[in-house]
Amino acid sequence: MTIELINTGSELLLGFVLNTHQQWICRQLTDLGHTVSRQVAVPDGGHDIQQAVREALGRADLVITTGGLGPTCDDLTRDLIAQLLKRRLLHDEAALQNIARFFAGRGRPMPERTKVEALVPEGAMVLMNANGTAPGLAIEVNPNPFRPDGRPSLLVMLPGPPRELRPMFSQQVVPLLARHFPLNEAFVCRTLKTTGIGESYMEERISAPLRHLTDAGMDLGFCARVGEVDVRFVARGPRAAATVAEAEAITRSKAGEHIFGEQDDSLESVLVRELTARGQKLALAESCTGGHIANRITNIPGASAILLAGFVTYANEAKMVTLGVREETLKSHGAVSEATAREMAEGARRVTGADYALSVTGIAGPGGGTDDKPVGTVFMALASAKGTTVVRQLNRFDRETFKYLTAQQVMMMLYRELQAGRHA
Amino acid sequence: MTIELINTGSELLLGFVLNTHQQWICRQLTDLGHTVSRQVAVPDGGHDIQQAVREALGRADLVITTGGLGPTCDDLTRDLIAQLLKRRLLHDEAALQNIARFFAGRGRPMPERTKVEALVPEGAMVLMNANGTAPGLAIEVNPNPFRPDGRPSLLVMLPGPPRELRPMFSQQVVPLLARHFPLNEAFVCRTLKTTGIGESYMEERISAPLRHLTDAGMDLGFCARVGEVDVRFVARGPRAAATVAEAEAITRSKAGEHIFGEQDDSLESVLVRELTARGQKLALAESCTGGHIANRITNIPGASAILLAGFVTYANEAKMVTLGVREETLKSHGAVSEATAREMAEGARRVTGADYALSVTGIAGPGGGTDDKPVGTVFMALASAKGTTVVRQLNRFDRETFKYLTAQQVMMMLYRELQAGRHA
Repeated sequence: MTIELINTGSELLLGFVLNTHQQWICRQLTDLGHTVSRQVAVPDGGHDIQQAVREALGRADLVITTGGLGPTCDDLTRDLIAQLLKRRLLHDEAALQNIARFFAGRGRPMPERTKVEALVPEGAMVLMNANGTAPGLAIEVNPNPFRPDGRPSLLVMLPGPPRELRPMFSQQVVPLLARHFPLNEAFVCRTLKTTGIGESYMEERISAPLRHLTDAGMDLGFCARVGEVDVRFVARGPRAAATVAEAEAITRSKAGEHIFGEQDDSLESVLVRELTARGQKLALAESCTGGHIANRITNIPGASAILLAGFVTYANEAKMVTLGVREETLKSHGAVSEATAREMAEGARRVTGADYALSVTGIAGPGGGTDDKPVGTVFMALASAKGTTVVRQLNRFDRETFKYLTAQQVMMMLYRELQAGRHA
Repeated sequence: MTIELINTGSELLLGFVLNTHQQWICRQLTDLGHTVSRQVAVPDGGHDIQQAVREALGRADLVITTGGLGPTCDDLTRDLIAQLLKRRLLHDEAALQNIARFFAGRGRPMPERTKVEALVPEGAMVLMNANGTAPGLAIEVNPNPFRPDGRPSLLVMLPGPPRELRPMFSQQVVPLLARHFPLNEAFVCRTLKTTGIGESYMEERISAPLRHLTDAGMDLGFCARVGEVDVRFVARGPRAAATVAEAEAITRSKAGEHIFGEQDDSLESVLVRELTARGQKLALAESCTGGHIANRITNIPGASAILLAGFVTYANEAKMVTLGVREETLKSHGAVSEATAREMAEGARRVTGADYALSVTGIAGPGGGTDDKPVGTVFMALASAKGTTVVRQLNRFDRETFKYLTAQQVMMMLYRELQAGRHA
């Protein structure tokens, strides 16, 4: 099955916005067992959109477009595709009612211009928009005049705003694809999330032990990001589930200390979940990460149940006044030292009464390094009822990467502590 | 001049990474006065890359590819393009020396496999890689067998990693384009960064006052993001600079209170710059933004010169112990209240001795709202030697958008205060 994705929008080609649709839609399809073979972005406007859709329909079984379904003068996708397919645009009363309900729910009058969104190419299926006004559209192009052999293609048109597109895709397009393009065999896809190990080292550890599974057809994939490597197993056929389960068990036995979650887990979401389940509390004392860890943890709904406080103690004075770090410690060891990291974590735990406190102090750069403690040096500590552990790392990266990676390392310290507690 | 961009990489089509190259390269070209007319992503592997390059060379004066120049088995762009253009690959000694220097500088042996990166299609110009090993390549395709009229095209091939691609583009491709495709007239592009006003309201305020300039050919563009609207002026010809200066002056007179910067400024970078220039210090007390503001400010190099401390006082206890918020205040007004916001800001200023303190307390959601204070309610305060100002806002958005928007609003309070001080 061949799939092509067409993103419309001049703002994409002017470089004013990131094309997040590409990654999101491609990832959804990958997890469903399909692969997108080409993605194209074209500006709003007649010629390019029609040419891109014509070319894609000439090659692909499924063509997905995003954008250009709204009410303004540069929303031309609906009209241009109807014209290309030689289909009339017909008023759809159910679509109009849905739009009217959207405005009524917000107590606002429906602008006259919005009615254009209820125009639907003849024979198209309407995908109601639960989070906006413009419906999506699905058209079976059959016979398909753009394919030499006339084989049919399915054309799905989705609205541009992500919070309209994403639920529409999950709730309406996914079932539609399951009907139109049933997988002819079982398909299982599983991702393990890891940190603290590079892609090639991970590959070294697990590729030989997994060889009997990959030789038998299982796909083994790695995806490296800053501070994380995803390990992905894909299997098909009647033994798919058993194969993936075996691959996971082997990987956990070979590299379990680096695994913190599955599928879309993040370290912060896993920590919030685990601490919530135990009814335990966390405090943070950040110097060089500057609130990055607190920000990530508080991005998770429900974080208030576990996070008591975070202290961004950039200045030495703040380390002393807020966390009780001793002047003597700062003078004799320096702000970036094992002793300071220890006192910061212990101070944060003492001040808040948290079960666990994490601290970080280091040199993010670009300035501030010395021979003894070069840029990238960082001390991180975990304080708990069992005592305090301090680790030294060297993270030589640009400022934002440094913060991200350091956060991964110190959050992983806590994750391992929680796992050890669970297994003890 | 027609430009097409081809991004290679199977990870793009599997949805494992965001295509940040598209936005970045398109934006650079836009700022240089060029517009990309099409962008395509194709997987690693023979057929698709060659087909995409052939099609692009058939339409465009400039074709840029990204990725596939590295040493591993899926880095095929160099070979496939040489094959397509029927050019031999020749060993380039200078490129090899550059690769050898890269490894020597890191005290690591050069892997044998890396030598493939020193192979260059006959007649290609080598763009040395200052931040990695694989050089970029530029090929003048002249005559161009893929264009009906044989007109030449320039093909530029860039390495995939952003920290290699970006400096190479800025330092080597930009001058190359200036020579190859000189603009036949002056070109001035200027962006004003604004916050606190929607795109359509901004348009309402300035489009009529700017009409004489847009009628005379100046482009006026708006780009809306979460909590920000960019206003962009583009003019060409001998009066370009004067036209853009006039447009800026008019916009400042009509909507100046919303403008915080220019070009690539962010509110946090502007605050760090302004406070550094005055030798003044800042403290933060964040509840519902959870460290988001501290994180953004500490992303700016040099932030340690102005940020004394940030307090993420999620729990009431932390508000009292760390910031001295009174129990009485929390009991009678609640944690989300004008009084609490005021005491948080004043407490943060008192504890740290900062010139300015910002505080935020609110309900990010999804839970926690009441009739009186629905989800999205937020109080924010600015404390300084002149006293304390508190503002109430209602930001009904998902959690991360709420944090971003709230941060914009409270940082803008400080920016306006600094501007008022400057003009006083």
